[in-house]
Amino acid sequence: MPSKISDLGEKLLIKRLLSKSKNPRLNSLFLDENSIKSLSDDAALLSLGENYLVACSDMLIQSTHFPKEMSPYQIGKKIVTVNVSDLAAMGAETIGIIVSMGLPKNMPLTDFDDLVDGVLDNCNKYGMALIGGDTNESSELTLSGTCLGIVGKKNVMMKNGAHPGDIVAVTGPLGLAAAGFKVLLNPFHKINPLEEDTKNLVIKHALEPEAKMKEGIILAKSNSISSATDITDGLLSELGELIDANENEIGFIISMKDLPIPKEVFDIANITCSDPLDMATAYGEDFELLLTVPPNLFNDLKTKLSIYKIGLVDSSGKIKMIDKAGNTNIITPRGYEHLK
Amino acid sequence: MPSKISDLGEKLLIKRLLSKSKNPRLNSLFLDENSIKSLSDDAALLSLGENYLVACSDMLIQSTHFPKEMSPYQIGKKIVTVNVSDLAAMGAETIGIIVSMGLPKNMPLTDFDDLVDGVLDNCNKYGMALIGGDTNESSELTLSGTCLGIVGKKNVMMKNGAHPGDIVAVTGPLGLAAAGFKVLLNPFHKINPLEEDTKNLVIKHALEPEAKMKEGIILAKSNSISSATDITDGLLSELGELIDANENEIGFIISMKDLPIPKEVFDIANITCSDPLDMATAYGEDFELLLTVPPNLFNDLKTKLSIYKIGLVDSSGKIKMIDKAGNTNIITPRGYEHLK
Repeated sequence: MPSKISDLGEKLLIKRLLSKSKNPRLNSLFLDENSIKSLSDDAALLSLGENYLVACSDMLIQSTHFPKEMSPYQIGKKIVTVNVSDLAAMGAETIGIIVSMGLPKNMPLTDFDDLVDGVLDNCNKYGMALIGGDTNESSELTLSGTCLGIVGKKNVMMKNGAHPGDIVAVTGPLGLAAAGFKVLLNPFHKINPLEEDTKNLVIKHALEPEAKMKEGIILAKSNSISSATDITDGLLSELGELIDANENEIGFIISMKDLPIPKEVFDIANITCSDPLDMATAYGEDFELLLTVPPNLFNDLKTKLSIYKIGLVDSSGKIKMIDKAGNTNIITPRGYEHLK
Repeated sequence: MPSKISDLGEKLLIKRLLSKSKNPRLNSLFLDENSIKSLSDDAALLSLGENYLVACSDMLIQSTHFPKEMSPYQIGKKIVTVNVSDLAAMGAETIGIIVSMGLPKNMPLTDFDDLVDGVLDNCNKYGMALIGGDTNESSELTLSGTCLGIVGKKNVMMKNGAHPGDIVAVTGPLGLAAAGFKVLLNPFHKINPLEEDTKNLVIKHALEPEAKMKEGIILAKSNSISSATDITDGLLSELGELIDANENEIGFIISMKDLPIPKEVFDIANITCSDPLDMATAYGEDFELLLTVPPNLFNDLKTKLSIYKIGLVDSSGKIKMIDKAGNTNIITPRGYEHLK
């Protein structure tokens, strides 16, 4: 019997939280069936005529989410990125963001100003406004963002729609953020044999990730996506989410050789004695989109944006990884999970 | 020159945060002039035809907001109450709430379940759904709520519209929550001469405050309110907010003898050697609504709900308190402010 919340871990806790609310009375004109289904999508959907207003919330906490190398400006950018990424996964266009802050009493004012500049610069980048905020005193820096966006009901992408036979794809390279964190955590990184360019590239991915908003909108408008999510907790963890969100039993067959893992990830795995596959599938923070597409629509979709086929949906209930030798490994969903 | 954020305090920090965003490009059909003005209203307004969608965010943090006597169930209720109170101040009806949680690793699962029950019971009480949530690991319990509601553009109440000559009123008694906290903080409260009923009443006000949602909706529909806010940080602090939000110079003349301060507040002030007027005007947490009304509309409004006239708006830029002897005291806005 679990007795501490850490016995359950974050994902089971969220389920426990939301399951109690699973069948709220649809007490408002603004809630419909998808508003309820979207509980597993890290976002709330409000029905507005032909559109959904999407509201998603994400909290970032110093000790869990901010490596010490991350500057206040980068922290400000990140609270916007993680929230916009949730909108991107549904294909929504941004409207605005509200940022609530818990701040340590002795925070220098220049750090606060830098943090706000990071928030505003990313609001600008993603075409939206800072529409509200409040500050509180807290023992550690805590930021909570709520991002509002809009998407056509016909276009909205959700986690629950994958069908056996669909192609599984991602929008970009996996493992670069993990590689960046490996470099940051390696005390010898300044003297290791990596090229400066490589180091800078992966550290930028770790400290200044980007949300795939444009890609999300293109995907949603294509009307060809059966399910989608953003890769924040690692590919395997997100595949597990797509399995959990689906009413029918689905599973995945992933071809390891097809995973878009850049050379830099292999280089850094080599130097830090890490498993590059692990970095590409279990670390997260890449913020690429993971999607499933009916096979007859895939080629047309490829003409609209760059996507990488990595496998197929089946009905096994499992995640099967096919290695380069053709062997099948059955994998438990993993990924960065707090509170465990 | 301020160098730490604590040199500025919460209210100036929020201003600093939002002032940088004061003139965001109205980049979306969903933002209008009031969306910008509402930055000082603890709420974001999105334009939806004849209505505004109201989104407000409030964060509560263990060390600052939860006395040790507050149970997990009461904490869950409170994150909903503080957010609904922001909607009530604008006259909005509730749609739903998203709750992000930062949780200490060793939190007992029963406490988590009680907290969620508190959230859901208050969602039910205020006629809305829990529409999203996430959990994170945190050194101290941190809850961030974002509440969505809807209000007619013709009806929305804001902080900025008071005119000299308007009547100032509140929706209910002031000081009961402060009295409850005095009792809780007084180590001798168990042996003090208070009646159990009195103690229970004030402690309930402190630990299970209620948002004045119904009152907010009646006030908004009356179309007679020139400005309104909820009293979370104390009457004087909120009067200061109404002065700050107004483009024109306004001030207030408040009649101390007209403040609705219940007998219980005087009793507890007496026992704890406190100033009852201070408890009623500088402590906050009462969650009553503060409003201004053109004088010709006040009597009609009084037939619709119980409100208490406490003073008048003038153009002095100051808050003048008239005591029982008829003396005028000029008061600096005070109230509970974090980070100072």
